[in-house]
Amino acid sequence: MKLFWTPASPFTRKVSVAAREIGLWDEIEIIQTTWPLSWGFETVPFTPGLAENNPVARIPTLVTDAGHALGCSTLACQHLDRLSGGKLTGPEPDRMWSLYAIADGLIEAQILMRAEHLRPSEYRMESFLQKQRDRIERCFDAIELRAEELQTSGDTNSPNLAEITVGIAASYQDWRDWLGNFRHGRPALTRWYENFRLRPSMCATEPAETPEA
Amino acid sequence: MKLFWTPASPFTRKVSVAAREIGLWDEIEIIQTTWPLSWGFETVPFTPGLAENNPVARIPTLVTDAGHALGCSTLACQHLDRLSGGKLTGPEPDRMWSLYAIADGLIEAQILMRAEHLRPSEYRMESFLQKQRDRIERCFDAIELRAEELQTSGDTNSPNLAEITVGIAASYQDWRDWLGNFRHGRPALTRWYENFRLRPSMCATEPAETPEA
Repeated sequence: MKLFWTPASPFTRKVSVAAREIGLWDEIEIIQTTWPLSWGFETVPFTPGLAENNPVARIPTLVTDAGHALGCSTLACQHLDRLSGGKLTGPEPDRMWSLYAIADGLIEAQILMRAEHLRPSEYRMESFLQKQRDRIERCFDAIELRAEELQTSGDTNSPNLAEITVGIAASYQDWRDWLGNFRHGRPALTRWYENFRLRPSMCATEPAETPEA
Repeated sequence: MKLFWTPASPFTRKVSVAAREIGLWDEIEIIQTTWPLSWGFETVPFTPGLAENNPVARIPTLVTDAGHALGCSTLACQHLDRLSGGKLTGPEPDRMWSLYAIADGLIEAQILMRAEHLRPSEYRMESFLQKQRDRIERCFDAIELRAEELQTSGDTNSPNLAEITVGIAASYQDWRDWLGNFRHGRPALTRWYENFRLRPSMCATEPAETPEA
């Protein structure tokens, strides 16, 4: 498999962490992508091969061994899940996907804020940023109320995709200084995350800025 | 099941068309949502029950019979697919999902344009709109090259989710007057769509403006 990748993207990190947790990371060839900072508001030159494989021209894009490009992190993780016999889904798919959808929507709000910050300041809307902050707060609150579903932490069991996505959302919140501290008023999530973030799959995928060229 | 719904949203229409095609539409209670036009750039009052079920506060949100909220159109359609025994996925899942991802990314670009148009004009960026137009053009071009995978048209066979999503993307392109004609230079897609759009599931879900209150 091939993965169009960058270390800054939490959507891409989902694929990286999931593949490591189920032992498929070594099957994936990583293609580092570059992104001029203007990606947030204009068409930019794409890393060779990206738009040819996936006309959405977005990361992550996972190209399967059969050559099918999956240009969406959920679909890419589901492909890995099928290869692993369902390790990422676990015994209660609907419950797991419902928590996953919250964490994934949270990450989308984080990335929408990132793109808004990249706009020239005169085109930036504070109310748009606030809309995303409100969404992020609601999502973290909902995750706190469902913290009993976060069961895999620093131990050797394999986490499901909801746990992986919650962990990555929390980590991104810590990484970007324009995002607030998710810990206030959320003791159960905080306790779980302090162990989850120490997993080898998380330590090996700490975010870093994407090369601009 | 319950579906938080509006007739304007192509993401929501995916769930509506898919449910009709596999005979599950009558199992779903529709909850009409309202959206002030400022949803594109600020937090708005939500239809009662929406944010309580799905803190992302977005449509579609499908609540399963067991009470799990799936706040993402892909996950909602996959739930329906499991209930139907895989009718929406078909015999070649990876191929189908790779085409689906293109059509879904195309719809996302359409909706990002919609949200940009809703901004006060002084905050609107032409380069952002052009970025989305470029993405839409690339995606329709890629779909044209894969038009042989669009096999279900006006006949009685049930379409897969990629076909449904391509059909909805094409229909949305026709509905919004700020989107161009997708037909130019794409004869195979055009021929297929002229039959596909006549399916009862498509005719029954023609887009209409969302109530603002």
